Formats: sequence, C-alpha cells, structure tokens
Amino acid sequence: MSKVRFDIAMSLDGYVAGPGQSEENPLGIGGEELHQWAFKLASWREAHGREGGEVNASSEVVAESQTGLGATIMGRNMFGGGPGPWGDDPWNGWWGDEPPFHRPVFVLTHHEREPLTLGETTFTFVTDGIESALAHAREAAGEQDVHIAGGAEVAQQYLAAGLVDEMQLSLVPVLLGGGERLLENFGDSPPQLEQLRVIEAPGVTHLKYRVLK
Amino acid sequence: MSKVRFDIAMSLDGYVAGPGQSEENPLGIGGEELHQWAFKLASWREAHGREGGEVNASSEVVAESQTGLGATIMGRNMFGGGPGPWGDDPWNGWWGDEPPFHRPVFVLTHHEREPLTLGETTFTFVTDGIESALAHAREAAGEQDVHIAGGAEVAQQYLAAGLVDEMQLSLVPVLLGGGERLLENFGDSPPQLEQLRVIEAPGVTHLKYRVLK
Repeated sequence: MSKVRFDIAMSLDGYVAGPGQSEENPLGIGGEELHQWAFKLASWREAHGREGGEVNASSEVVAESQTGLGATIMGRNMFGGGPGPWGDDPWNGWWGDEPPFHRPVFVLTHHEREPLTLGETTFTFVTDGIESALAHAREAAGEQDVHIAGGAEVAQQYLAAGLVDEMQLSLVPVLLGGGERLLENFGDSPPQLEQLRVIEAPGVTHLKYRVLK
Repeated sequence: MSKVRFDIAMSLDGYVAGPGQSEENPLGIGGEELHQWAFKLASWREAHGREGGEVNASSEVVAESQTGLGATIMGRNMFGGGPGPWGDDPWNGWWGDEPPFHRPVFVLTHHEREPLTLGETTFTFVTDGIESALAHAREAAGEQDVHIAGGAEVAQQYLAAGLVDEMQLSLVPVLLGGGERLLENFGDSPPQLEQLRVIEAPGVTHLKYRVLK
C-alpha cells in the first residue's frame, strides 16, 4: 500500500534546524549536531565517497527509509538557487549531473520552469500547490511510497493538510535553544499520532509514528 | 553514587503541561493526555485504590524511577494551596494524612513555615533557594538519590543551574500546541546531554539522559 512519508532529525527541544539559517549556513547554528549520528555511518560515508564509518542500529533505519520510494517532493529552498524566477541560466540543484534520487522529483515553486532531467532523475516544477504536487507524485510512484524530502516547512504543510501517512523523527539529545520547529502551527486540529516503532541507536532515537486521518 | 534526577512526561512538541493551566486544571488543556499511559498501569491503579490495569514495559520504568530515592524536592505550586503566605490554617498538601513519599520532602517557597510531619513524611519548607534545598535534600538522602518531583519550572531551574545528573522524559505521541515547556530558557549554555537508555512502551517512549557538567 503506497504511503506518503518523511524522515527528519529533530533536537530534543523540537528544532529541525538551528537559529540563524542562511544560504551559507542552511542548517542554522548548531544544526549540524542533528546529523552527527548519520555522518558517522559507513553508508553515509560511502555515499559521499569516503571510507570507514560505523555500522549500527541507525544503518538499517536509514536503509529502510530510502527503500520503496517511487517519487520525491521537495520545496524550492531544498532544491536551492535562491528565491524568485529561475532566470536564463537557472540553478540545477545541489547534486551535479547524477543526482542520487533516481526517481521523479517534484519541486514546489511559485515560478514556472520546464522539467529538468539529470542522469536518472527528472525534476518537475509544480506551481499549483502541495496537493497538486502530491497528485503528480502519487501517480509517478505507483505502488511505491511518496517521500517528502523537505524542508521542514514543506513537511509541516503536508502534515497540517492531513496528507502524511507516516513520519519518522530521529531525536537527537541536543538542545538548540532556537531555530525552526517542525511540530507547530497546526492551530486547533493538530495531527493525531500513533507510535509505531522505536529504535535506540548511538546518539539518536528513531521514533516512527502513523499519522491518523 | 547518589544522583539528582527527575522524570517527566512530555508531548512530542515539547510541552509538559497544556495551555490554560489553572488551579482547577493544573495540567492545562489536554495535559491529561500526557499521563494516559501511566493511568492504565496496574501499579498506578493499585496505588490509587483501583483494581485492574495493565502490566507492560512502562511498569518497570515507573517502579525503577520510584526506587532508591532518599529525599524529594518540589515547588510550592506542586505542594499546592495557592501563592502567598501560609496563614493561620495552612494548606497541608494534596495527599491527606499519609502522603506517599515516606521520605523527607523539601518544598521551595518564598514564605517561611515550620516543618510539617504527616505519617512517615516530613515536609520542610525552604526559603533560601534551590541550592539550599538541594543541600538539605542531599544530606537527608545520604547514599540514596534526590528526586525533583516538579513542577516543570522547578525541574527547569535545576537543569539550568547544572544541578541535575539524570532525567527521564516519557515522550507521548500527542501534540498539545501550547502550554509549558521544560526544555527552554537555558540561554547560551544549554545542558549537554548523553542518551543513556530508551524503552518503547505502549503509547509512550521512555528516554533517559545523563546531564553532563
């Protein structure tokens, strides 16, 4: 059964990015601490051309989260290149000629643009909102899952709209004291959650929840 | 080795009490949802004169948290009776003639009062601050642990002062959307944490952290 899901690292005080986010510092001050557990993994290091690293309980969690995905949705900020119209020599993403997705990616933006194919990944730019992007992604994904890659604001919008089936929070024992929160701005009808699974790993706890409709 | 520790239930969005706290509704709106996992336990029901209930992974966590305690510290709000001087016919706590502590309890207050003994529990009222209360509690506890019972504001003060050794957060999959947070107001030097243990239980995840000095 196809699901809509996302995974995100969160500090114990609820932040998914630190304060003072900028183009130079997209994770905000201290935000890198949210990902130290991942940077240590052999699988992460291998994917980034490095040797060594650990294999621990997080390895399987990460592998699982990247399996069975048929399409990805991301926000314009995550795709990058700054705000505004795309221009004549548009930004083509952070990932070079062979982006690691190998599946259709739908980019939420206010500015129209023709689809962009790089290697096995096609980026389609969607200007008519999150529900439209999800409809495209569902169709592209078929029986596989739709992955909301981020940023946090996009994940929050999908959560608030009741369009997410499952989320995994990788809870990191750090207090950032400020920054961007995922779990807020839901008004009077916050998502109802059911705890599905908890995995303890070095320096992080992976908490998986079903989002009830 | 004697430790200073506390346990507290927290929503996934970081609240330890809901919005709109009052004397009639001390947990705030929705705050009772933070404790449903505990209310279902046979041990909780037995302690409150009821039959039935569940035995699950939380049972052992709760039993452990109540073991090895030599003294308790609580705030005036938790002791109850409203703010201000104690008066001629003072409030004697929520717990009747046989409070369940059976150990010395130190109550933080701005208003002097003679010690109060009820059953096997003596309440000592401390007016010169959290460090003084902790010194009294440590002396009373001997080799046993000092328990910070609450409320959240008191636990936060001890955390901010670097006086806590261990905390257990019972993380509940509910979003309260407002209320009182535990993990804030630490300024530029938030507590540094080390994840010690994670226990998954029905409707809750018990996360234990060491607080580094």
